Amino acid sequence: MAFGWIDEQARARRRAGLVRVLRPRPAQSPLLDLASNDYLGLARHPEVAEGAARAARTWGGGATGSRLVTGTTELHTALERELADFCGFEAALVLSSGYAANLAAVTSLAPYGSLVVSDAQNHASLIDGCRLARGTTQVVAHAEPDAVRKALATHDGPAIAVSDTVFSVDGDAAPLTALAEACRERRAGLVVDDAHGLGVLGPGGRGAPHAAGLAGRDDVVATVTLSKSLGAQGGAVLGPARVIDHLVNTARTFVFDTGLAPAAAGAALAALTLLRREPERAARARAVAADLHTRLTAAGLWAVRPDAAVVSVRADSPEEAVRWAAACRTAGLSVGCFRPPSVPDGVSRLRLTGRADLSGSDIERAVRVIGETRP
Amino acid sequence: MAFGWIDEQARARRRAGLVRVLRPRPAQSPLLDLASNDYLGLARHPEVAEGAARAARTWGGGATGSRLVTGTTELHTALERELADFCGFEAALVLSSGYAANLAAVTSLAPYGSLVVSDAQNHASLIDGCRLARGTTQVVAHAEPDAVRKALATHDGPAIAVSDTVFSVDGDAAPLTALAEACRERRAGLVVDDAHGLGVLGPGGRGAPHAAGLAGRDDVVATVTLSKSLGAQGGAVLGPARVIDHLVNTARTFVFDTGLAPAAAGAALAALTLLRREPERAARARAVAADLHTRLTAAGLWAVRPDAAVVSVRADSPEEAVRWAAACRTAGLSVGCFRPPSVPDGVSRLRLTGRADLSGSDIERAVRVIGETRP
Repeated sequence: MAFGWIDEQARARRRAGLVRVLRPRPAQSPLLDLASNDYLGLARHPEVAEGAARAARTWGGGATGSRLVTGTTELHTALERELADFCGFEAALVLSSGYAANLAAVTSLAPYGSLVVSDAQNHASLIDGCRLARGTTQVVAHAEPDAVRKALATHDGPAIAVSDTVFSVDGDAAPLTALAEACRERRAGLVVDDAHGLGVLGPGGRGAPHAAGLAGRDDVVATVTLSKSLGAQGGAVLGPARVIDHLVNTARTFVFDTGLAPAAAGAALAALTLLRREPERAARARAVAADLHTRLTAAGLWAVRPDAAVVSVRADSPEEAVRWAAACRTAGLSVGCFRPPSVPDGVSRLRLTGRADLSGSDIERAVRVIGETRP
Repeated sequence: MAFGWIDEQARARRRAGLVRVLRPRPAQSPLLDLASNDYLGLARHPEVAEGAARAARTWGGGATGSRLVTGTTELHTALERELADFCGFEAALVLSSGYAANLAAVTSLAPYGSLVVSDAQNHASLIDGCRLARGTTQVVAHAEPDAVRKALATHDGPAIAVSDTVFSVDGDAAPLTALAEACRERRAGLVVDDAHGLGVLGPGGRGAPHAAGLAGRDDVVATVTLSKSLGAQGGAVLGPARVIDHLVNTARTFVFDTGLAPAAAGAALAALTLLRREPERAARARAVAADLHTRLTAAGLWAVRPDAAVVSVRADSPEEAVRWAAACRTAGLSVGCFRPPSVPDGVSRLRLTGRADLSGSDIERAVRVIGETRP
């Protein structure tokens, strides 16, 4: 049979405790959510939902074509201006997902003959960007600017270093200042994925590049998602206008994809408006994560100290992580359960997010449940 | 400077007449639209817009996480059931774009040691899927089942053939029945991208695989977009349940991406409801395209006979295509302008779409303008 080989892989997954299943959630879940990436609690905010609804009514259900044909509306342009301005960059380009934004940035900025230096724990979308790029990729040790420096020194010609700003599994931050320095020494560009930094890091949530004083520099490009802190869908590339023009002309995931749906653009714009009005949400998300970490550690659990809003708690095995997450769910708590191949080091863990709208008693309850359900 | 090499590429593009610019459109455009992929005229349909708005109000602005964590809502599941049922497949998996769906299908179904046989004119997203897949790709001549047969005969072990059902630039259809036969002889899977077939081909727009009697077969997988005939955003993979389970577990653009925004899922569901109620829309889109082709040919233009709803009109050069499209726009008509590298054969053309909601006088006016503005 054509796809017969699939069954053997499925059996191997079952044996290894690595089967994934989808769990459809209802609109009003009774679970306390510590699993989503809705860091600021904006996905269900009435203004964000209304931003989406209004955009759909005004602009329709979809963008109707590639951004180069009919898929650019004045709403897309307004969102791009606002994103660039908020994060401190000259220009922005909105794509249908953060994944597409990372593929666009890396492939367009790593032409034939160039070098890409990529952190060993980068997100799957950056890795796929490296694999699709015509340049050569060197993978370097996690969060080691000296390794980046050495790799860049092996190459003449166009080069970029690529890194998450906040690594999605453990929530640790990249050494952005040192990375930028290493890049500047070699006249290389720095491309950073701020998916987990936007809305959480920097003054009022303007992101990790802004916090590190790198936003707006002519050798720095950032990507962001609209689907995490901004509670919508989509991604964007932020950078110098000439880089954005270059992407408009060359990025396959921009040119050959339908533009982002108006509803998602409208939701993201509404979220940015809210974030400008309530800049304290960013610090609150960080404080919640720090509080979670302190209490979990005090309860004897092995949690990674958060640099942003992600708190990672290690489990002894994939099976244990699955049992633990299931027990949390039974006790009314939704937590992320990350197993190979979604973890860079093979270590399974619970992944918690410190959302800005969690109350003190939510946090207490979460820590109590996680402690009590530990296998 | 880090990105200095970009400027030379920009100059080369200008010299070759290949610069792309974004043209933001207002919510109420005065232009007659023959450029979008809104084949059934549903993107602005009140029921589709309301489907998006209602979903955003009920479910929020975004899916809040990966489909494997918090990003699967009951709305996603309902859409997947309806898509599978409408198109005649056992199961469906919804992703954030058609691009992501194609990357998912090809990479997950072409493991190490496998062969992918890919049509020379396949869409960029299928090509990128081949490049990301661990298997080996053989590119074969456009729409030649015998070439596929020969390529498959060179290989033992897992294999797939990959093709658009309707090629996006010229609008010609793939020889699906013969392709499926070639695959079956070699126990290879057939993966087809029905982005431009869904809503247009088959009874009531159920798509090219349904029309060819291939839907629901255990060796056939189809991908579709929600952003063309369905007037929303997103993509889906349709196939046997075991293939869909395999993708849930292995497809990186599914696992590591945020789930599709509820508004897009709601819009697509509303469009499918409409299409079930008004199945004549599909035939109408085809008839409009055929009428466009007949009249353009009668006017002495070189137009490709449409197999679906795309009508391609050749231009003598990229510069001429740009001037022609600009003159159409000045005369109130929006047409697609496709130039290298977005055309497989290097030939620039105007690309028109026969939308189901164009009137007879719209068609007459479009043909008159295109004829009169010919450079």
